[in-house]
Amino acid sequence: MTDSISLEPNALRLRAADAIAECRLIATMSEETGRTTRRYLTQPVAEVHARLRARMEALGMAVTVDAVGNLRGVWRPAGVSGKLLVLGSHIDTVPDAGAFDGVLGVVLGLEWVRLAQELGLDRPIEVIAFSEEEGVRYGVPFLGSRAVTGTFDLSMLAYEDAEGVRMDTAIRAFGLDPAGISAARIDDEVLGFVEIHIEQGPILEAEGLSLAVVEGIAGQSRLGFRFTGHANHAGTTPMHLRRDALAAAAEWMLAVETAAREVEGLVATAGKILVEPNATNVIPGVVEVSLDVRHIENRVRSQFVKEFQRTASTIAHKRGVEVEWVEKMEQETVPMDRVLSDDLLAAVAAAGFPERKMPSGAGHDAMVMAARAPAAMLFLRSPGGISHHPDESVLEEDVEAALTAGVFFLRRMSGPMKL
Amino acid sequence: MTDSISLEPNALRLRAADAIAECRLIATMSEETGRTTRRYLTQPVAEVHARLRARMEALGMAVTVDAVGNLRGVWRPAGVSGKLLVLGSHIDTVPDAGAFDGVLGVVLGLEWVRLAQELGLDRPIEVIAFSEEEGVRYGVPFLGSRAVTGTFDLSMLAYEDAEGVRMDTAIRAFGLDPAGISAARIDDEVLGFVEIHIEQGPILEAEGLSLAVVEGIAGQSRLGFRFTGHANHAGTTPMHLRRDALAAAAEWMLAVETAAREVEGLVATAGKILVEPNATNVIPGVVEVSLDVRHIENRVRSQFVKEFQRTASTIAHKRGVEVEWVEKMEQETVPMDRVLSDDLLAAVAAAGFPERKMPSGAGHDAMVMAARAPAAMLFLRSPGGISHHPDESVLEEDVEAALTAGVFFLRRMSGPMKL
Repeated sequence: MTDSISLEPNALRLRAADAIAECRLIATMSEETGRTTRRYLTQPVAEVHARLRARMEALGMAVTVDAVGNLRGVWRPAGVSGKLLVLGSHIDTVPDAGAFDGVLGVVLGLEWVRLAQELGLDRPIEVIAFSEEEGVRYGVPFLGSRAVTGTFDLSMLAYEDAEGVRMDTAIRAFGLDPAGISAARIDDEVLGFVEIHIEQGPILEAEGLSLAVVEGIAGQSRLGFRFTGHANHAGTTPMHLRRDALAAAAEWMLAVETAAREVEGLVATAGKILVEPNATNVIPGVVEVSLDVRHIENRVRSQFVKEFQRTASTIAHKRGVEVEWVEKMEQETVPMDRVLSDDLLAAVAAAGFPERKMPSGAGHDAMVMAARAPAAMLFLRSPGGISHHPDESVLEEDVEAALTAGVFFLRRMSGPMKL
Repeated sequence: MTDSISLEPNALRLRAADAIAECRLIATMSEETGRTTRRYLTQPVAEVHARLRARMEALGMAVTVDAVGNLRGVWRPAGVSGKLLVLGSHIDTVPDAGAFDGVLGVVLGLEWVRLAQELGLDRPIEVIAFSEEEGVRYGVPFLGSRAVTGTFDLSMLAYEDAEGVRMDTAIRAFGLDPAGISAARIDDEVLGFVEIHIEQGPILEAEGLSLAVVEGIAGQSRLGFRFTGHANHAGTTPMHLRRDALAAAAEWMLAVETAAREVEGLVATAGKILVEPNATNVIPGVVEVSLDVRHIENRVRSQFVKEFQRTASTIAHKRGVEVEWVEKMEQETVPMDRVLSDDLLAAVAAAGFPERKMPSGAGHDAMVMAARAPAAMLFLRSPGGISHHPDESVLEEDVEAALTAGVFFLRRMSGPMKL
């Protein structure tokens, strides 16, 4: 079917190369020279807006910046009044970021608009460059998609960044009016939201695949465990009379890892540890360990959170150590829309790629958008599984695959059946 | 045999209570109100000197303070010229210390002198209140006993404390002349050095014993291990594709503990841990763990240090993690003098207590003194194994036991056979 687009041979491969170059150029728009750091509504965001606005206008899109700072371009084919297809991702970054997390989804969203135009399709499309997703500046993620879905809590406007700048002040300084945030809500009837994003994990690379369709954003439980033993002299306390909080925590971390390995799709991570007194010659008295558990099925996640709690109790009891825990975050799985995801999967297959579905272990704007509209995500392989790092990359062949899949997907989104 | 000392019934029990009260009184001589902190040559040290000097003079001892700040009292029975029996321990403390670590050995040393006098024994005795053992002020322990044994490195005089005060300045401020340090070396022929000290561990309490004779100061190896895996997203990296440095370290810590538990007298402690990036949602990339290994037999200690290194390599290799280590300290076991220790053990038995020998897992002045003279140590049970803490304590019955054992020990140290 691809030959029905009137394109030169290799045209999509060349556009893929251009899209990568575009992302790399945008990565130079940064708060810091030599590193990519672009927090919410900082100066380089304006540069990115100027760059993307020009591209949107060249595509004949009507461009606005809403009150939360999302850059939004709408293309309405003449005489067409159907539901809106929304594409996009975010343009803010973590500190010392790579060039593709977020930005790639905006750049490729615009390339999909170009393809839709070239194919003569009759679907109105809005591309949103969300202003904020990472949560770096104000400690709260998804500011952009919250505003678009009407779930932006206005009390957040009083939040201050590390320099003490209130969010509403930052919005005004960017030339916007925070009073307009509720008007940022998308009012059109939305056919669906599609976010193209790098996987940020090693699975597709391990399987030799270019693309996957995301089934859902895995639910997440975060807990803090505290093991309390008895600090004592490392030289004078024999092994059998110790109540070593770190040894207890070590046994538990190993048990958690062992159990998680047995369950498809379950991840459990002890990422942060704090030991008291943390001295070479003193048996640790208190250890705090974080636990992050994710699985696409809420039932499985809950079951293992309980199991890990029981394991902690059992190990602690056996060792004469106390253990307690607090739940710090409990987030249910957000499934992607089944119908829209199947359309995307069918497009991937039509483009000649295996129909791989996978959960996303990380949060994305699509998770927030899912509350407002059918949402779907297309993952591109992350070489080395590397993300949030300057070495983050994407392969030209995979970007080409995403463009080819776009051709088939956009066709499925057009025509009277979808109006 | 105890009835041959002409003492009232219960006299030693009452003296034990007095000795405990004396230690508690000395504990109030502190740099901080409400807590016992007495670093090398600080103001409260002068108060302690005044208190102990009065006691020494009341016992007819000749009292001096040597150039490193050791308070030294010598009792020479009339017409006796035999080798000197040296008793003592240190009077400096760790911050927020208990009342007995060190001081008890000085107070009981003086009680032993009193007993020797009452028994009419013919042994010259010197009691030394070592000025420094903990190493708190200048980061180097055993300043007092180093000076007495002629092993004080004069270059240490240029060391500065946390406030930038040089050691030689501190010595002069205390009214002493650092030029006299080499003269602090004990020149008399020494029959032996005996240090009475609390165990600072839980073994005697666990066995229901009052006293033990120390076989030696266990050798010690300190190492730093560094596990290097790969930091990655806790949500997007499946378990089987992780190279989790903390999970590797946990497996190793558990293996070390398991192995150490199997070997009598071996202690191995992972006390300090440092994780990078140490974030809840990031798989740990780098973990540094300290290892402290002690055993009374150098061969056993070395064997297990090697085993723990091999275990680290095996675990790391299996997990695709790198591991390296550095040796930070390697201290051989210092055996106590066999003959003098047997005398002490015989005295303990004669006093009616079980002949328990045990290694010391902590360093003591006796370790330094052993280079100059036969050295022995008498341990008193530490309730709860607690030391370096305000709750540090000692039982009246155990202090009485140490006094009773002193009667028999001092008798063995007297008479023509020992001259």
